[in-house]
Amino acid sequence: MSFATVLNSSSQLHLPIIRRLPHRSSFRCSSSSTTTSVKFDLKTYWSNLIGEINRNLDDAIQVQYPDLIYQAMRYSVLAKGAKRAPPVMCVAACELFGGSRAAAFPTACALEMVHAASLIHDDLPCMDDDPSRRGQPSNHTVFGVDMAILAGDALFPLGFRHIVSHTPTDLVPESRILRVIAEIARSVGSTGMAAGQFLDLEGGPNAVDFIQEKKFGEMSECSAVCGGILAGAGDEEIRSLRRYGRAVGVLYEVVDKVLQERTKTGTENGAEKKKQGKSYVSIYGVEKAMKIAEDLREKAKRELDGFEKYGDRVIPLHSFVDYAANRGFTVDV
Amino acid sequence: MSFATVLNSSSQLHLPIIRRLPHRSSFRCSSSSTTTSVKFDLKTYWSNLIGEINRNLDDAIQVQYPDLIYQAMRYSVLAKGAKRAPPVMCVAACELFGGSRAAAFPTACALEMVHAASLIHDDLPCMDDDPSRRGQPSNHTVFGVDMAILAGDALFPLGFRHIVSHTPTDLVPESRILRVIAEIARSVGSTGMAAGQFLDLEGGPNAVDFIQEKKFGEMSECSAVCGGILAGAGDEEIRSLRRYGRAVGVLYEVVDKVLQERTKTGTENGAEKKKQGKSYVSIYGVEKAMKIAEDLREKAKRELDGFEKYGDRVIPLHSFVDYAANRGFTVDV
Repeated sequence: MSFATVLNSSSQLHLPIIRRLPHRSSFRCSSSSTTTSVKFDLKTYWSNLIGEINRNLDDAIQVQYPDLIYQAMRYSVLAKGAKRAPPVMCVAACELFGGSRAAAFPTACALEMVHAASLIHDDLPCMDDDPSRRGQPSNHTVFGVDMAILAGDALFPLGFRHIVSHTPTDLVPESRILRVIAEIARSVGSTGMAAGQFLDLEGGPNAVDFIQEKKFGEMSECSAVCGGILAGAGDEEIRSLRRYGRAVGVLYEVVDKVLQERTKTGTENGAEKKKQGKSYVSIYGVEKAMKIAEDLREKAKRELDGFEKYGDRVIPLHSFVDYAANRGFTVDV
Repeated sequence: MSFATVLNSSSQLHLPIIRRLPHRSSFRCSSSSTTTSVKFDLKTYWSNLIGEINRNLDDAIQVQYPDLIYQAMRYSVLAKGAKRAPPVMCVAACELFGGSRAAAFPTACALEMVHAASLIHDDLPCMDDDPSRRGQPSNHTVFGVDMAILAGDALFPLGFRHIVSHTPTDLVPESRILRVIAEIARSVGSTGMAAGQFLDLEGGPNAVDFIQEKKFGEMSECSAVCGGILAGAGDEEIRSLRRYGRAVGVLYEVVDKVLQERTKTGTENGAEKKKQGKSYVSIYGVEKAMKIAEDLREKAKRELDGFEKYGDRVIPLHSFVDYAANRGFTVDV
């Protein structure tokens, strides 16, 4: 589901519990798509950013010999409907602390590359066995399992290489570039997304919190943290970004599962149930999942309180929470 | 096949063409295991290094929750019989230019991690379909295909993270650490090993040079180059290390295939033939492959000529060429 398609769609969700939350003064961006701030054109901000990110990604993965591996990489990274949430969150977090887009863009693009790589591998038949993603055939459906594994294996290092070759060292000290690389490596590896995927395949029901945080919270956490590191945010600010990003990533996933539950036909078989993985909805049911979503939304918003001093620059970070919670925010991409 | 097992084994190879090459003055280390230099105890050098590398790798991958992913990572990285050629070459190249082991070790260990990751993925049923490696069951044979993919996915980023977290910045400027990360990323990705593996699966017979260089030369080239970068070698010296490392990696593989051809039973079926991939032996036959090996040996040795000014410190780099060509060098590990 893309930002472009959610407005007024049947999948739009307004969690009743969340709607009862009072609008605090820090909510510059409403959960309704009709009330964006007059001081800050959020739709233009998002649209411009996504356009710039798409152009950068297109440039970064040019087809060369042997063509097919680059075509497989481009197929997933440049897929239509990609929300670009990791790179946008990275840029938004960097700009919050006065960092520039030029400083953030190489890392933002790298985040999209490693995100695409992890999704390619997650979709494999031996993993989540998803033949399609965002309404299009999965990478392995088009290119075969062997090629999909290699495309992922190539996108992970390309991300790290892109950061090193493209980050302007007159804007970002090398020590920060190294911290960003370590942060992304932590996030995708055995302390992060790989562990989440493993437990989603193998773990018992008690692993649900771990799976949600690692499989769905890590990319968002890492994106926010990298933006902060690049701009020179302080340790306490980085810790806030970490908690904020993780909460947003898990919130998005919980709401996604609630929406899926609503559109269920009631005829799915055991294999389909297994494929859905261990979610709060499958373990605790819709009602408790919605309560968890409410808590996550509050948690994410609370972390942004400390950033209100930065004025309108915090608005994009609010928009992630609002979109994750209600899917009521849209931009044309 | 490990360094510990090759001495006097039936697999020992003395390529006749290579043996006709005159011993040049630069050959401090003979291709025979009995004539190491009195000034430089090569066996002790190798044994100590491998022991230190094994201890560092053991420390770097401690089992934590969820245990099984770490066990799968350790299974391949700490496998008995691993030759540790990439890390030893990295340390040897770093020491050649006066760099310290403390400077080289984090990168050396990272090279072994990404090397293990690429071997785990290469062995998968949809790739080279190798149920065993170094006489032990392959990672996927023990842990399953899903787990083997995840173990590889976790080892690649762990390598990058290990470099950032362990390289002492008082010994290695951050700019060099960034160059090393970019070099490893280049080597494992779509411009390197992933492209070689892809063409080994899909490419036509004309791709044999590309496959040999990318699939088998990259790791060795990258290891030598990283050692040079860490020690501050000049651009021309790095170019020499690059050509040297690539030649050694391909040489090792060509000789391996010649040895395999010699021990063939003559009963392998089509699937087994396919599994052998596109080698110089399978495309051109043993005789031409041995001529190619001779050329590669000469090329690698020639690149070391410029480093003779560093005295005994060039000996370990000679030992790689000699071992790759003749398997006549051994250390106890």
